[in-house]
Amino acid sequence: MAVPSSSIAPPLKDELDIVIPTIRNLDFLEQWRPFFQPYHLIIVQDGDPSKTIKVPEGFDYELHNRNDINRILGPKASCISFKDSACRCFGYMVSKKKYIYTIDDDCFVAKDPSGKDINALQQHIKNLLTPSTPFFFNTLYDPYRDGADFVRGYPFSFREGVLTAVSHGLWLNIPDYDAPTQLVKPLERNTRYVDAVMSIPKGTLFPMCGMNLAFNRDLIGPAMYFGLMGDGQPIGRYDDMWAGWCTKVICDHLGLGVKTGLPYIWHSKASNPFVNLKKEYMGIFWQEELIPFFQSVSLPKDCTTVQKCYIEISNQVKAKLGKVDDYFSKLADAMVTWIEAWDELNPPSAAVPVPKGASK
Amino acid sequence: MAVPSSSIAPPLKDELDIVIPTIRNLDFLEQWRPFFQPYHLIIVQDGDPSKTIKVPEGFDYELHNRNDINRILGPKASCISFKDSACRCFGYMVSKKKYIYTIDDDCFVAKDPSGKDINALQQHIKNLLTPSTPFFFNTLYDPYRDGADFVRGYPFSFREGVLTAVSHGLWLNIPDYDAPTQLVKPLERNTRYVDAVMSIPKGTLFPMCGMNLAFNRDLIGPAMYFGLMGDGQPIGRYDDMWAGWCTKVICDHLGLGVKTGLPYIWHSKASNPFVNLKKEYMGIFWQEELIPFFQSVSLPKDCTTVQKCYIEISNQVKAKLGKVDDYFSKLADAMVTWIEAWDELNPPSAAVPVPKGASK
Repeated sequence: MAVPSSSIAPPLKDELDIVIPTIRNLDFLEQWRPFFQPYHLIIVQDGDPSKTIKVPEGFDYELHNRNDINRILGPKASCISFKDSACRCFGYMVSKKKYIYTIDDDCFVAKDPSGKDINALQQHIKNLLTPSTPFFFNTLYDPYRDGADFVRGYPFSFREGVLTAVSHGLWLNIPDYDAPTQLVKPLERNTRYVDAVMSIPKGTLFPMCGMNLAFNRDLIGPAMYFGLMGDGQPIGRYDDMWAGWCTKVICDHLGLGVKTGLPYIWHSKASNPFVNLKKEYMGIFWQEELIPFFQSVSLPKDCTTVQKCYIEISNQVKAKLGKVDDYFSKLADAMVTWIEAWDELNPPSAAVPVPKGASK
Repeated sequence: MAVPSSSIAPPLKDELDIVIPTIRNLDFLEQWRPFFQPYHLIIVQDGDPSKTIKVPEGFDYELHNRNDINRILGPKASCISFKDSACRCFGYMVSKKKYIYTIDDDCFVAKDPSGKDINALQQHIKNLLTPSTPFFFNTLYDPYRDGADFVRGYPFSFREGVLTAVSHGLWLNIPDYDAPTQLVKPLERNTRYVDAVMSIPKGTLFPMCGMNLAFNRDLIGPAMYFGLMGDGQPIGRYDDMWAGWCTKVICDHLGLGVKTGLPYIWHSKASNPFVNLKKEYMGIFWQEELIPFFQSVSLPKDCTTVQKCYIEISNQVKAKLGKVDDYFSKLADAMVTWIEAWDELNPPSAAVPVPKGASK
């Protein structure tokens, strides 16, 4: 008998983990149930480890709190931020899957212009499984979507594209603004549904937001370090930005693609702009030096793996940004620790399962 | 008495010319009447100059046929293509306005998703009058549109943007495909309305289509040469591409911006793919060499004007592409002739009016 289509397994069901950093009960998952329930969740509990996080019934998950992180990583746990959603990158490290989707717990299911619920994960998977075109701009956007193609004048030798490492999704309702913009435009809401996915061109940096983000862990995982933020650090809210700049530079070097655009999620609540300003204000100065730094980073030819690229960037961070602030020397060290921890949990021939902490 | 708002002049009414290359009666203007009638049209009649082109009543226009071009430019008329819509660039040269909008005569008014007629010219003007942001990608697209802004992580020093030189509009219905794609996908229609305008990042080339294009003539005019195409040439349908590659390289060098996206026009009729293949096939080979060439063009610091940049590019074309085919040596010479003709018709202190040929 033919298999009815309703029984077809969800795409990448056994190859993708959903990583959620949180400090509260995960009621937001109820709305995502039709889309997320087939997948394994990795919940990274931030803050007080004695608190119990409730996860709705029926989800398959593992949960790691700070005690688990400390136990699994030992002294290397110092590279994982505390009291900041940057801790999510621990989830990328302990995953054994090829793909990661990460989402914030204040993000809900958005609707497309026809009123239909958007399956964000499905769109990310489409983005990741089709090539990127970073070498030349296609004016009709993603040439691999139905009803689109490469336009006249697009060199044929570029049409094969390159592997896609990152799919960066967007947000309806509350846009991802910095504190100054939040303060100046408290009422601004993003209502514009832009029906496009596009490759970010080679050589171009972008502000990568961690709220609604998917990536190919095999291709780029070790670059997805969210840095030192939050507790004991002079800065917050630059975790995803840092990861994005490092990732983009490495993708450009290794010939991998980064896409942005669809899917949208519904971002429900603006964070407090005053609190944000306190976290961000050093970053607002520093980013003026960080962007020229990342725009000029050049990786030598023998950096043929993500790890090698990342260590090289950490060296350059120490040499060139250490002067900006001591924080960057500390961060450069943490970048090295992160790679050591990554390689420990993900040995090159990663056939042997690694203890998973508080796996349920 | 206050002036009622209905009497407000159309934007840039006395500062913008609409350039239309054609071989037929301009009935298509009827549909554009509400949007185009306030503006001056420059019609460049291609092909047989003895043919009479009918222009609907009530439009203010000048019309130049081949005899006019020959009379105005003398021997320099050799740089203007014949029997190819590349001849449109003659219109850019004889205009005395700051802005140009050029449109093909098979392009009609498109509708936005709400069913409203799109005033393409008005959107182009918005694009040209707001800055571009080529140095860093904004994930919410044009930060100057209503309801949008720069996102978190966008360096504040880049938020002023740069002057916009080019606004590249798109097409619903018949997409701008090359002959091979037309042949493979004869039924494909573009039905996706992507509600976005974006800056094409610095260092990224794109396929510029001349069907629905606006630019600031003062900023970039002399780079908008549509090359040698059509009659007597080994190639066609690369006129706008050539202009786009030169323009983008010069904009990047001079710190000017190029936008693409809205507005859409309705492209009514696919051109014959067999005829197109004949025109294009040399270009399909050549573009594989042209793109790496333009990606590596470097302009010296003393190229401080568009003209100087353009002459420098023509030198590099001759030196590096002359080997690919003799055509490029001829083209390099024509590029120089074009600049000479441009400067003759547009002397640095362009206060003196220049004879306008068959001005009506």
